[in-house]
Amino acid sequence: MRPILAVFFAVIVSCSAFAAEKPNIIIIFCDDLGYGDLGCYGSPMIRTPHLDRMAREGVRFTDFYVGASVCTPSRAALLTGRYPIRNGMCSNDRRVLFPDSKGGLPDSEITIAEGLQEAGYATMHVGKWHLGIHEGSRPTDQGFDHSFGIPYSNDMDPREGIRHREHAGRQDPPADGWNVPLLRDNEIVERPADQTTLTKRYTEESLKFIREQKEKEEPFFLYLAHTMPHVPLFVSEDFYGKSPAGRYGDVVQELDWSTGMILEALRETGLAENTLVVFTSDNGPWLVMNDEGGSAGPLREGKATTWEGGVRVPAIAWWPGTVEPGVTSIVATAMDLFSTSLSLGGAGLPDDRIIDGRDLSAFLRSGKLPPRKPVFFYHGRELYACRLGPWKAHFHTRPPFRAGGAKDHETPLLFHLPRDPSEKRLRPEDGVGIKALKEIYSAVSEHEATLKAMPQEVD
Amino acid sequence: MRPILAVFFAVIVSCSAFAAEKPNIIIIFCDDLGYGDLGCYGSPMIRTPHLDRMAREGVRFTDFYVGASVCTPSRAALLTGRYPIRNGMCSNDRRVLFPDSKGGLPDSEITIAEGLQEAGYATMHVGKWHLGIHEGSRPTDQGFDHSFGIPYSNDMDPREGIRHREHAGRQDPPADGWNVPLLRDNEIVERPADQTTLTKRYTEESLKFIREQKEKEEPFFLYLAHTMPHVPLFVSEDFYGKSPAGRYGDVVQELDWSTGMILEALRETGLAENTLVVFTSDNGPWLVMNDEGGSAGPLREGKATTWEGGVRVPAIAWWPGTVEPGVTSIVATAMDLFSTSLSLGGAGLPDDRIIDGRDLSAFLRSGKLPPRKPVFFYHGRELYACRLGPWKAHFHTRPPFRAGGAKDHETPLLFHLPRDPSEKRLRPEDGVGIKALKEIYSAVSEHEATLKAMPQEVD
Repeated sequence: MRPILAVFFAVIVSCSAFAAEKPNIIIIFCDDLGYGDLGCYGSPMIRTPHLDRMAREGVRFTDFYVGASVCTPSRAALLTGRYPIRNGMCSNDRRVLFPDSKGGLPDSEITIAEGLQEAGYATMHVGKWHLGIHEGSRPTDQGFDHSFGIPYSNDMDPREGIRHREHAGRQDPPADGWNVPLLRDNEIVERPADQTTLTKRYTEESLKFIREQKEKEEPFFLYLAHTMPHVPLFVSEDFYGKSPAGRYGDVVQELDWSTGMILEALRETGLAENTLVVFTSDNGPWLVMNDEGGSAGPLREGKATTWEGGVRVPAIAWWPGTVEPGVTSIVATAMDLFSTSLSLGGAGLPDDRIIDGRDLSAFLRSGKLPPRKPVFFYHGRELYACRLGPWKAHFHTRPPFRAGGAKDHETPLLFHLPRDPSEKRLRPEDGVGIKALKEIYSAVSEHEATLKAMPQEVD
Repeated sequence: MRPILAVFFAVIVSCSAFAAEKPNIIIIFCDDLGYGDLGCYGSPMIRTPHLDRMAREGVRFTDFYVGASVCTPSRAALLTGRYPIRNGMCSNDRRVLFPDSKGGLPDSEITIAEGLQEAGYATMHVGKWHLGIHEGSRPTDQGFDHSFGIPYSNDMDPREGIRHREHAGRQDPPADGWNVPLLRDNEIVERPADQTTLTKRYTEESLKFIREQKEKEEPFFLYLAHTMPHVPLFVSEDFYGKSPAGRYGDVVQELDWSTGMILEALRETGLAENTLVVFTSDNGPWLVMNDEGGSAGPLREGKATTWEGGVRVPAIAWWPGTVEPGVTSIVATAMDLFSTSLSLGGAGLPDDRIIDGRDLSAFLRSGKLPPRKPVFFYHGRELYACRLGPWKAHFHTRPPFRAGGAKDHETPLLFHLPRDPSEKRLRPEDGVGIKALKEIYSAVSEHEATLKAMPQEVD
């Protein structure tokens, strides 16, 4: 919706003279990577030396949340800075978009790419999209100058007779087992996409973009949304069979290599000190995939649940010379990356809609702590849990993909996360617990008062 | 047993001219510190910057095991390099020594301290002992020139009306609630020991010893066996209430400070490049203590079990200029520290008894991988599990301290640890699994053939 955008970002035009001071922004978004899958997050066996170095040089978040525990709504939250309940990008039934879905990210939504594009950034999407394949929802409709990648999850569109779960932990999945297309700017360039080289090709594409941008004056935004380590797992030859942790380890180690290549390219081109790189994941590990799924480390449960293992993910922010190296336990979310990116890019935030993300640019630049804000955890369109300060209350819980519906907790399950990140020990209903719950109820009421009836894009 | 020792270590005498080249050795042994309790092992909330730095500068072990999952036998294994089943330092009933126990580490056993003492080392024990209070078993009977610390666990000897579990997670435990004595060279110097300053005083004592040794010609061995983070938890004022992870976090952060002070003293005195420091724990976290217990991170169960959470612990080896910084997944044990220390000290290994530890000095000096060796996990005097290569087989399992006896597994529970460190997914009984089990059975037979009838020291 360009006419409206032009109004929202009018402020940008007057700032364009300062384009050179605008930092480049790269968001690396993995698929189903768990909290416990990186060396710097305590993985016992997967080796991630490049990400560990990134963490040492940057700031590592211990309490970073996604906007939803499954793929489509989580990506919508990242790119729009809003809970998916606000724009219809969530459902109780299918939960994510499928190749036959009619809906997608509404054109009326404003993405990071649109904001930064208006602010003079070159914008590039590489990797998985999963926010709709129809006009209005595609990457190039949502602010990206260019796009290279697959339109939905790599396990959708299986060829006849293929069931990826059968391959878990044993033989290699057949490279032509899924009919997922590889697109460049909406045109199919390969079908089925050869998934064994996707991570490698995404990396090459990203490096090419970075080097091209080096030659130009304009700042850039690169959204690298890896297809991996979502099942079915594929790696290129160089990483095949290299990790004692099995195929999942191979795949994560290739993602580690990829990140290392990107940081190295930034150093080589002299862009590092003017580029913020954030590495994170779209949701927790797909535990039911067994050896093919990741690990939530000490956290409870995984993908598709509102337990910590489903919604808390690794996150590292790297910006040499600007971000003070360290570890932080501020409660932050993927939605914050929307507000932060627009702020860093000198773009104004939209003022005609609620943005749930907070601007963390002052935190990144000078360590200034952002104000406390509750985080809400939805299962589809239902509010299941809320975190406020150290406390998390579960109003409903539900097993991830198994039979059996939700459990309703008339007295919410209350946990003190800094002391009990594994959500194992119920906080007793004493004075402190009751006070915490009251504050949470109040936060929930305020939040719910801001919700409007929304269209349903996913079912 | 000095006369016998003199024979075993005869080789030393001829090497004494090279004493200056013998590295100092410091073993820092925490009590009940879990696999997931340090930043570098993925703790979400406990901050351990000094240990994280130690890990970056040294080698961090991902697969390091103790010789037993509870205190007394684990310490016996560390100091003698032998499974406790070989010397009676384990039992099915009480499992550890109590103040009224008659037994203790037999005088006939050879400890690291005895070996190094014979090799010309000054030897010092600081901290908890828990290997017997009677003549023949005490630190000064077992090779330590001097000793400063408490004789058994800090929760033994409770004063009337004190039950430490009642304090868990709420109010502070009363500083005079336990009547544990503080000893110097077997003499009581304070009773009850003021536990709030123990970590601090142990650290000061260690620093004093290091600085005194700096003035002398002789190499030294320091065994710093912290009382913490064993329940009841105490910290000094400087660390009180500092960690959002609660009292357990405070306590671990003081241990982190302590380790930082020791490494800094080594740097300051110029001893760092001639000193091997190993930081580790005696067993997994005491999970039933709830907020007062630690975390095994992604590992299953904790202290007093033969699941990974009970027997796999953090371990960092630091020796600037000699140990190549990195992360290793070699399977190593606390018993290896016996053989390694004696080897580094130029002491011959006893040849009249079986030593279960392996000499890792070539690994530390040049990264040379040690030969594969099975690790056996005992519950008391019963062999419960075995690890060989990537495989672990459980013949019996048992809940830690709860009602209910052992479960016997006619077909052992088999796990592939590099792929499944959480021991969640049983390896199916296919060809690969059956082959692994056969090799494990064979290793168990060989091991059992080496066992002799032993006295019972613990019950």
